[in-house]
Amino acid sequence: MLTLFRQKTMNNSELPKLPTAADVQWAQNRIAGKPHHTPVLSSDSINQIVGAELYFKCENFQKVGAFKFRGAVHALSCLSQSELKNGVATHSSGNHAAALALAAKMYRTKAYIVMPSNSPAIKKIAVAGYGAEITYCEPTLEARQTALDQIVEKTGAIFIHPYDNFNVIAGQGTAALEMLDDMQQFIPRRIIIHGDEWEFDNHDKRLLDIIMTPVGGGGLLSGTALIVKHMLRRILVIAAEPEGADDAYRSFTSKQFVPSINPQTIADGLLTSLGKLTFPIIQQNVDAIVTVSEKAIVDAMRMIWERMKIIVEPSAAVTLAAILEQKFDYRGKRIGIILSGGNVDLDNLPFRK
Amino acid sequence: MLTLFRQKTMNNSELPKLPTAADVQWAQNRIAGKPHHTPVLSSDSINQIVGAELYFKCENFQKVGAFKFRGAVHALSCLSQSELKNGVATHSSGNHAAALALAAKMYRTKAYIVMPSNSPAIKKIAVAGYGAEITYCEPTLEARQTALDQIVEKTGAIFIHPYDNFNVIAGQGTAALEMLDDMQQFIPRRIIIHGDEWEFDNHDKRLLDIIMTPVGGGGLLSGTALIVKHMLRRILVIAAEPEGADDAYRSFTSKQFVPSINPQTIADGLLTSLGKLTFPIIQQNVDAIVTVSEKAIVDAMRMIWERMKIIVEPSAAVTLAAILEQKFDYRGKRIGIILSGGNVDLDNLPFRK
Repeated sequence: MLTLFRQKTMNNSELPKLPTAADVQWAQNRIAGKPHHTPVLSSDSINQIVGAELYFKCENFQKVGAFKFRGAVHALSCLSQSELKNGVATHSSGNHAAALALAAKMYRTKAYIVMPSNSPAIKKIAVAGYGAEITYCEPTLEARQTALDQIVEKTGAIFIHPYDNFNVIAGQGTAALEMLDDMQQFIPRRIIIHGDEWEFDNHDKRLLDIIMTPVGGGGLLSGTALIVKHMLRRILVIAAEPEGADDAYRSFTSKQFVPSINPQTIADGLLTSLGKLTFPIIQQNVDAIVTVSEKAIVDAMRMIWERMKIIVEPSAAVTLAAILEQKFDYRGKRIGIILSGGNVDLDNLPFRK
Repeated sequence: MLTLFRQKTMNNSELPKLPTAADVQWAQNRIAGKPHHTPVLSSDSINQIVGAELYFKCENFQKVGAFKFRGAVHALSCLSQSELKNGVATHSSGNHAAALALAAKMYRTKAYIVMPSNSPAIKKIAVAGYGAEITYCEPTLEARQTALDQIVEKTGAIFIHPYDNFNVIAGQGTAALEMLDDMQQFIPRRIIIHGDEWEFDNHDKRLLDIIMTPVGGGGLLSGTALIVKHMLRRILVIAAEPEGADDAYRSFTSKQFVPSINPQTIADGLLTSLGKLTFPIIQQNVDAIVTVSEKAIVDAMRMIWERMKIIVEPSAAVTLAAILEQKFDYRGKRIGIILSGGNVDLDNLPFRK
């Protein structure tokens, strides 16, 4: 009862095999050199405003403008030549569609993308620009699943789910793994002298206190939680979600899957329900999910644009929004924030007075 | 006849002493560690669209969000303790005001800023936020000069001109100097074998073919031209200017100072006339000034926002606009572009359809 989708190409056993931290580490090796190694940025002025040390992992600078490329390219890297032959398929109106289209292009195979007919023109152009074959459908879950099933049946393409896919989850976890590696540069190594002897301080102690991601379907959150809890168990993993799409929060707190029904939020990447794989990983490895108001999302997005001069999409701003709304004990903490993406429609921004 | 301003604190001799490349190099030493060392970014997709290799020096990530901090902090670093005592003053509604205010704060002295009363609220807040004392005046050249003269007379503060100041120009040149240093990382070193001997290729050959800046008052352009022409004479220095504020273009081509009268452009940092110092430096060291349409500025700005996920102000986009409008021979060239700043009013963007 954990999913709304019929997933033809997935194993429907009651206990799906879940990825582990080792799978994230393998993913990093497999896809090395394919995604951008994105920078970690920090802003003195935002730190002063909020009273914490924030480190932003800039997946808005990732290929296709979102972390989604990591999972998509990793999923393709795990397919054999014969599996790749007939192409890959998915349903998505957002970043996963562009990510899968680019990954397929890199692996010289076809991508079949089912998009709702009311998707923004800019998204259609981006996906078509990577050479994917787009099938438009009515904007309902049923219509897109039917369209996808028909394509898979006709072409033999392999369905790559946007988040509820073993290899996609492992791929998304590489953003946090890369960040933990890079964070070491921010920690000055100290030498502790004991009488005649000296040793290096265990500088991992202060690596990060908390790591945050948004949560929609849970692919980024579960990949992040897997690797973080394996590497440094004491780092808290906290996810943020819009109040108007709080199904993950309610699933997490009630320990029962709650589907996302008629979600209302500006954060268009966070509309989906948790999945069969992501929900149990999140239950086991995440410390908290908090919800944020729409106003806080826009305020946080504006703060990142104005203070850091970088473009992030509303879905990427929910984490800072949770800090602005003081939804957990963040004061004085070192907090890693994965900025999930930077794809916004510049003709339709939420900043007008 | 080179200036519209009466500059009480400047030497009015006919032949002002001009800064040289050595002054830019000294400036870099003096201010080391004070400005951010900003990154150089490149975008595969923009390179593909335009058919050239573009390298963007991101001064939008500089302190106060613009290169202006370099000149302001350098000007203050050149003052003695007794000169600093009474503070510094300027007239500016833009980035120089914020830059001087922050530099003064760092040197623990006062900044007196004359701003037109119709300046955007966001700019007033930024300048006040750095602790500067703001004097509002009518939005005319005469009113602001009178207000400034009164402040200098009353307080003994030292006037730091936004661009027509020896040390400001030398400071602005440090952006290009830093960029030329950093560009080496983009050039793979090659080994050339001659019979039994081998040598390193002179990789400076391909460092850059062209370097570009916007031109308003000419501070950034003249500092850039000084250091670039000293270090690698064959690099062309090309500036871009809005058609609606083309005084620098007309001054440069006619070899006679043409003042900026009633300029009309979205590029609010490029409204000013060249100065007594900047005009002769530009005449001697710049290869070309080209003009661009308002539409090209907005298109270029949108391209940088959408493709690079970074925020630049309209004034910073005139350089890419000149490439989009094919205003010079750029095809296949390696072009360094100094992105001058990233301060925009998010409530008033030019992107609406």
